[in-house]
Amino acid sequence: MPAVVLEDESLRDGLQFEDLVLPFSHKRRLFDMLRAAGVARIQVGSFVNPKVVPQMADTDQLVRELGGVEDVLVTGLVLHDKGLQRAVSAGLNHISLSVSVSDTHSRKNVRKSAAEALELALDLIVQARAANITVRAGAQCAFGCVYEGAVAEAAVVEALARMAQAGATELNLADTTGMANPRQIKQLVGVVAAIVPEAALSLHLHDTRGLGIANMVAGYEAGVSIFDTSVGGLGGCPFVKGAAGNVATEDAVNLFESMGVATGIDIERLCAVTTLFESLLGRRLPGRMNRVLAAHAIR
Amino acid sequence: MPAVVLEDESLRDGLQFEDLVLPFSHKRRLFDMLRAAGVARIQVGSFVNPKVVPQMADTDQLVRELGGVEDVLVTGLVLHDKGLQRAVSAGLNHISLSVSVSDTHSRKNVRKSAAEALELALDLIVQARAANITVRAGAQCAFGCVYEGAVAEAAVVEALARMAQAGATELNLADTTGMANPRQIKQLVGVVAAIVPEAALSLHLHDTRGLGIANMVAGYEAGVSIFDTSVGGLGGCPFVKGAAGNVATEDAVNLFESMGVATGIDIERLCAVTTLFESLLGRRLPGRMNRVLAAHAIR
Repeated sequence: MPAVVLEDESLRDGLQFEDLVLPFSHKRRLFDMLRAAGVARIQVGSFVNPKVVPQMADTDQLVRELGGVEDVLVTGLVLHDKGLQRAVSAGLNHISLSVSVSDTHSRKNVRKSAAEALELALDLIVQARAANITVRAGAQCAFGCVYEGAVAEAAVVEALARMAQAGATELNLADTTGMANPRQIKQLVGVVAAIVPEAALSLHLHDTRGLGIANMVAGYEAGVSIFDTSVGGLGGCPFVKGAAGNVATEDAVNLFESMGVATGIDIERLCAVTTLFESLLGRRLPGRMNRVLAAHAIR
Repeated sequence: MPAVVLEDESLRDGLQFEDLVLPFSHKRRLFDMLRAAGVARIQVGSFVNPKVVPQMADTDQLVRELGGVEDVLVTGLVLHDKGLQRAVSAGLNHISLSVSVSDTHSRKNVRKSAAEALELALDLIVQARAANITVRAGAQCAFGCVYEGAVAEAAVVEALARMAQAGATELNLADTTGMANPRQIKQLVGVVAAIVPEAALSLHLHDTRGLGIANMVAGYEAGVSIFDTSVGGLGGCPFVKGAAGNVATEDAVNLFESMGVATGIDIERLCAVTTLFESLLGRRLPGRMNRVLAAHAIR
């Protein structure tokens, strides 16, 4: 069975809307623990306005400190020119960016129409490639939008194809609203893979309606081998009512390993990260495997 | 797409280990609300010793009261001769029984070895059929046991085949410990369907490791169309450390309906049952769709 790669986004998607602004030393420690557990890709933050999102203010510093790390693909989220300049200046080799294919969600999230956001993204991709940075480009609300309902498949495919043409080497389908179902995942993954076969495909799944892991299985069966997760299932989106976090990294590890699919991740070490996050945030996170391990129900 | 049938077990699997003993009038009201929401099968209780499981003490009374109900398949769990006599005397037309295929789990649960429990079940099936009662027979721990680890597929198949031969018309594969994965579900469902093609197959999935819905999808893709659920994901098992409840009925409804598979259930009416359970039990249940609906995030 082909192995999978999990991109842990706890430090970015997980923390960006938490009330608590995690001190730098904790972030560094969480990164080191994720790395020691075998997580091969870590999204460490986003290059956004520190006044608006103070949780991400030390992303530059973290990226700088991690400059020598070679066994983990360190990545960060870029939204605009200024963010890209900061990523370049911090020495980042790989960035993520994404656009919403829903106009309403796009306007709420970045105050731009979907079309305007796409033009900006295309420009950012060209600039990043010129600076020798590889780019993963994503489509948010790819499976539906709480404001607009169904999203046209053609709009998703067009946005992704244009971003691949501009130089993105990986395309990410994001179920921002948790509205995807397994059938739809297989359908859209199949279409995108057929139209943009040269790009790697990844899935970013929110568990709002409890379908995160079922959608992950569907994606794997459709040929996807890269999945975004966050420890304990941290995360959410303030622009999507009732939104839950990503699929929990440790639950994804259990899923794949139990099916004989290698993740390269040590689940016990990973759950120590969940425990630390829970103690820093002062609440239980929705992921299941940390509790199962704690109950010694695993052999 | 073939429609599915959900058997709601909130009143049995959901309540049997709750500290709260729900008054009869509440149970009756919950049944009526489930029925009004379109749930076509309801497991209303078990015929066990009321001194040991006071939560189930009024099962006989409930079954008697529901004698005239024709649009819902009313069912109850039977564990032994005395329970069967009570079910017959209450006028029940359909019962569920099941045996654990793990010796250790069987001894903890019913103080009998798996082989002894199977012989008892075979005898109960014959008696029930003689009393004109239809029987669903299940294998607990069919996908693994927290005490014994992997469970031999042959043991599961043999137990189910013998119970079908004795007269059970539906066979239930129960992931009591939440250890199943989607690949294993497809494998075991395929084997059982091939060996006992005359019996209907159903799945009873616990969400302990977060794989309940993914396993449900796998079961559906393998041809299963009957799934046990409980409102809000109520339930668990005191003999399985860290065990979580069943898949939430409302989350299963959302899953199937979003894939275009009819359930016959009105999710808004169903979530009113979840809300009532939450208020009676004084805590939030793990199911997702009740919160999504409450956040008006659904259109």
